Amino acid sequence: MSLKESSPIRVNPDLRKEREKASFNISELTYIIDRGEDKTNRRRYLVSLALNDPDFNETNMNFLSRDEQYSSVVRRSVHIVQKLRKMKLTDLKDQFIYKAAALRGHGSIFAIHDLMLIPMLQNFATDEQKKIFLSKALNYEITGTYLQTELGHGTFVRGLETTATYDPEHQEFVINSPTLTSTKWWPGMLGKSANFAVVMAQLYSKGKHCGLQSFLVPLRSFEDHRPLPGVTLGDIGPKFGAESNDNGFCRFDHVRIPRINMLSKYATISPSGIYSAPVSDKIIYGAMVLTRITLVAAAARVLSFGCTIAIRYSAVRRQTELTPGGEEPQIIYYQSQQLKLFPPLATAYAFLFAAHNIRDRCDQIQDDIIAGNMSSIQELHGLSSAMKGFSSLSATSWLETLRLSCGGHGYSHASGFPNLYTNATALVTVEGEYSVMMLQTARYLIKCISMATSGDKLPSLALYLTSPPPAKCSARSSTDFLNLDLLVDAYTHRAFRLVSVAGKTLQSKIVSGKPHHIAWNESHIELLKAAEVHSHYYVVKNYVNSVKQLTMSQPLKSVMISLCQLYALHGIQQSAGDFLQDGYMNGNQIAMATEQMLLLLDVIRPNAVALCDAFDVPDELLGSILGRYDGNVYENMYLWAKSSPLNKTEVHESYYQYLKPMLKGSKL
Amino acid sequence: MSLKESSPIRVNPDLRKEREKASFNISELTYIIDRGEDKTNRRRYLVSLALNDPDFNETNMNFLSRDEQYSSVVRRSVHIVQKLRKMKLTDLKDQFIYKAAALRGHGSIFAIHDLMLIPMLQNFATDEQKKIFLSKALNYEITGTYLQTELGHGTFVRGLETTATYDPEHQEFVINSPTLTSTKWWPGMLGKSANFAVVMAQLYSKGKHCGLQSFLVPLRSFEDHRPLPGVTLGDIGPKFGAESNDNGFCRFDHVRIPRINMLSKYATISPSGIYSAPVSDKIIYGAMVLTRITLVAAAARVLSFGCTIAIRYSAVRRQTELTPGGEEPQIIYYQSQQLKLFPPLATAYAFLFAAHNIRDRCDQIQDDIIAGNMSSIQELHGLSSAMKGFSSLSATSWLETLRLSCGGHGYSHASGFPNLYTNATALVTVEGEYSVMMLQTARYLIKCISMATSGDKLPSLALYLTSPPPAKCSARSSTDFLNLDLLVDAYTHRAFRLVSVAGKTLQSKIVSGKPHHIAWNESHIELLKAAEVHSHYYVVKNYVNSVKQLTMSQPLKSVMISLCQLYALHGIQQSAGDFLQDGYMNGNQIAMATEQMLLLLDVIRPNAVALCDAFDVPDELLGSILGRYDGNVYENMYLWAKSSPLNKTEVHESYYQYLKPMLKGSKL
Repeated sequence: MSLKESSPIRVNPDLRKEREKASFNISELTYIIDRGEDKTNRRRYLVSLALNDPDFNETNMNFLSRDEQYSSVVRRSVHIVQKLRKMKLTDLKDQFIYKAAALRGHGSIFAIHDLMLIPMLQNFATDEQKKIFLSKALNYEITGTYLQTELGHGTFVRGLETTATYDPEHQEFVINSPTLTSTKWWPGMLGKSANFAVVMAQLYSKGKHCGLQSFLVPLRSFEDHRPLPGVTLGDIGPKFGAESNDNGFCRFDHVRIPRINMLSKYATISPSGIYSAPVSDKIIYGAMVLTRITLVAAAARVLSFGCTIAIRYSAVRRQTELTPGGEEPQIIYYQSQQLKLFPPLATAYAFLFAAHNIRDRCDQIQDDIIAGNMSSIQELHGLSSAMKGFSSLSATSWLETLRLSCGGHGYSHASGFPNLYTNATALVTVEGEYSVMMLQTARYLIKCISMATSGDKLPSLALYLTSPPPAKCSARSSTDFLNLDLLVDAYTHRAFRLVSVAGKTLQSKIVSGKPHHIAWNESHIELLKAAEVHSHYYVVKNYVNSVKQLTMSQPLKSVMISLCQLYALHGIQQSAGDFLQDGYMNGNQIAMATEQMLLLLDVIRPNAVALCDAFDVPDELLGSILGRYDGNVYENMYLWAKSSPLNKTEVHESYYQYLKPMLKGSKL
Repeated sequence: MSLKESSPIRVNPDLRKEREKASFNISELTYIIDRGEDKTNRRRYLVSLALNDPDFNETNMNFLSRDEQYSSVVRRSVHIVQKLRKMKLTDLKDQFIYKAAALRGHGSIFAIHDLMLIPMLQNFATDEQKKIFLSKALNYEITGTYLQTELGHGTFVRGLETTATYDPEHQEFVINSPTLTSTKWWPGMLGKSANFAVVMAQLYSKGKHCGLQSFLVPLRSFEDHRPLPGVTLGDIGPKFGAESNDNGFCRFDHVRIPRINMLSKYATISPSGIYSAPVSDKIIYGAMVLTRITLVAAAARVLSFGCTIAIRYSAVRRQTELTPGGEEPQIIYYQSQQLKLFPPLATAYAFLFAAHNIRDRCDQIQDDIIAGNMSSIQELHGLSSAMKGFSSLSATSWLETLRLSCGGHGYSHASGFPNLYTNATALVTVEGEYSVMMLQTARYLIKCISMATSGDKLPSLALYLTSPPPAKCSARSSTDFLNLDLLVDAYTHRAFRLVSVAGKTLQSKIVSGKPHHIAWNESHIELLKAAEVHSHYYVVKNYVNSVKQLTMSQPLKSVMISLCQLYALHGIQQSAGDFLQDGYMNGNQIAMATEQMLLLLDVIRPNAVALCDAFDVPDELLGSILGRYDGNVYENMYLWAKSSPLNKTEVHESYYQYLKPMLKGSKL
């Protein structure tokens, strides 16, 4: 059952007409997005379970203080655990859907417990450790978080300062924060919720540094939840978004834990303190790759939310008469508005297909990951880093354009955009900051260049480095730019050229005698560009493959091809310099590409609302008055405003204390 | 006395060293920014008055609820009025500085009263009306706001639905909100504060529509501050930023006001209801222009704040060893970081000089404005619209780059960025939404083209439309790109070409038989581009003029020239396609321009912190731990976090109700 069909609603006539114009079957596209009708049905079932459960109701979170928001999330998180048990809902994907709906997109206080602590115990604990810790964790008798970043240390993990010094006499580790900057900082659910943590710390044994290891450290008393002796912790204060998350800080003052508390499936320490290193230090790759894949899907998802809000609202909002006394058109009519709405819509689908593709690649090499086979994992790692960076920055930047496209009302929390953006923009920074991700990708690409030079087989996504397309774009007419292969060629050529430029720039600096790290730093601009255009190439190529290969009815395929063309042409128009600089295209070709892009806006217009509807986001999860499915925007904005906390009283208490004495009861 | 010199402080050694590297005298630049040493001294005096006044102290606003923030602003706003009176501080610029410092950048609840209501009474009220209303307003016996936008109507003012129907029998106007969408929406200080308003409404008399007029309407009782009969009003709820502002809504149910309450200096209505129109309907131009000029200065200001925070922090933050075991460098070392920091720094100065220039132009034609002479005002109107749009979008987009350059810590309210951005981004929308501003600018440019065609004299800023520079860039070597005139030529050529393209596109659609409004809409992309490149041209040209013409010591001049070069070259690199498309530059020239841009990063690096210090923003106004003048970031982040409201108790109350029953007092 579709959520939309459950209750008859009066739909804003402008929005209804937009829907009537659609040339394709919305459900067909929703099934593709969900990757199967059965999956759509399952998702809708799970979502409706959560949405219809009164235990998950909450008044408007926008009207609550941080403290109240936190309490609400604690309440619902606990309910979720209980209900999942009761319903015996054990599939992780099912759980993910159910939780997101129950929490209306907020994070559970057990999110890091579920996504990090438990997998870490499963993958890096010995059987003995599992016996002690895993069942308790699965049972939520301990609730944990993961402490890595410190006040003074983020990206550069080896720079972490927290120490774990082995004391062979007592067979204990002493966990310590030797400096202020070693204070653990940012971990989610650390401030108030977790009573337990995996702590990344520098291991010292027998006076020797044995690298970074993971330690299981109780943080709060299991009796009364008070911080344990030697543990100072708290909330780090309000943030741009993620208000309900008690991201925290934590300092250790020589806290002692037993020897068994070092995760020891790979690295071990003997009772006397002899350290044994794991075979590979890349064990953790798998988890990191998985997380980044999730973030690509998240970028697609937030963008689909933003498009849904702005496009539906643009169909409802009317402004500025075109001819004196004429009717004001829906703002979706304006070309300038379409340029803010349709390219991000095309981007949302681009990232969605990219996320599908990366997930498939990941599934295909699951066995390699488990076996620690590094070659195919490295390709996936390169791709997931690139796409994590590329998709998060692109999606969040579009979100702001979409918000601004809603004019003043986009600025209100009623639009949903403030929450959407402030939470989404974290994607650019978390789990690998943008520039770090892109430079990492560049390092991988430079490696591919040298592999190519020495005749080694290149990973499939970098094959273009040895077999680039022709050096001139073959388009002769404007319609040639609708040719999908021609578009892929353009992006391939651009990637080939700019990755090569980066390689040559770096090489020339090294040849001129600069140390590698200086040459590298001085080539950042070319390296970042290389990573960006490589990512862009991948997205376009995968988009084209997807719309070509997916089984779709002709009407739907036609729409998806237009979207794909728009995505590629918009990129060419925006980065025209990249295609012009070496003469791959000439100015006339850029003009033709732009002309086609504008024609595509008209092609997409009748399907714009339907393409958003296909994302199938229930109003409760969209959290936007402007983006309501029924388009009844103004009535509901008015109701929303009336319930604003400042309206509880007609006269604010500050009047009596401050304003009244000044106004002196003046009469006119 | 500089605020910085008032107390000896221990400065972070990295930041101290950066300051020691500066090649110019910071005060000299501060005087230029303030436009005179006397002005700097006056500003510092006024700011210190406010900062040292305990009545303006407030605990960290980030830790307060909206309700508490509002109360704090009410308290301080009332104090400000009293203190200004006591000190007899009547100069409006003095007041502006003092208020901003007393409120730490928040808006006074009398901001619209001071900036809109009083000027409107001064300029549009008859002497009789002034007697009744102006003295009371100046005395804050009435406190007003300005009601224009409605729930369903923003940009298109003529579409407003609120009506004022004249009733000759009672000699009263009946103010009415006939529909839900006519509800007045967004006005600042409307929800709880104001008891009075200027209301824009459609006047009807004798059954005829007499256009939009301004009416003086009491909203709340002067006795007890309750909404008056027929007036429904309230706060519109939480927003992205501006949390302490009670932006409100208001509906009128046949509210009657006397005939004298229509602002009648120009438009009048006789007792019997005969309407007389003003000579020109462009009377309101002056106020609009002044507001937009203020917003250009505001864009420069927010960007100067953002640069100060991110650049100081980048000098303090260290990350990632370059060579194994080596020291982690300050992140300002990295080229990728410099690309996020220095172009916006150059932009902040670009907009600052633009704001100075527009202000000077405005002062020069004050007499014209008062006399209603429209020709020079139209040029200023065109320029202020263009720059309002261009500067606000550029500045706020850079703010996000700057925030992201601070990594995770930029996401915390401790960085100051969340407040800075959410308040600054409103600049893109308020007082003329970006696309509307740019299309308005384009309309002006198209008019200039037709003036040129018919041989009329062009305004000075559009003269390039008749005398463009040569069709090829003359640069032969990389250093040629340091030639300021060559850079101006490049931007002039680009503006000439793309404004012409817009004109031709529009013209060809009209010639092909399309109605003007359809041709206009289908040319939006070219028109927006025309307005953008015209604005960019103006900014570059004015930047070059400023650094050439301002009296400066040689060391300072040298730094400012580098900044100006960076601004222009960064624009070329970012929009390379614009310069390549018609062959004005070739690919090699773009590469040379980029090379010079990168070399300039090294030139600016030693002065980066000093260039921020010159903005002279006291820590109390900067509101950022990361950007503190003393660079003692980590200690103060820790103190800040510890005082977060969630840390009032060690164990959150939600633990007892929800978590405890689940955790079952487990033991390990």
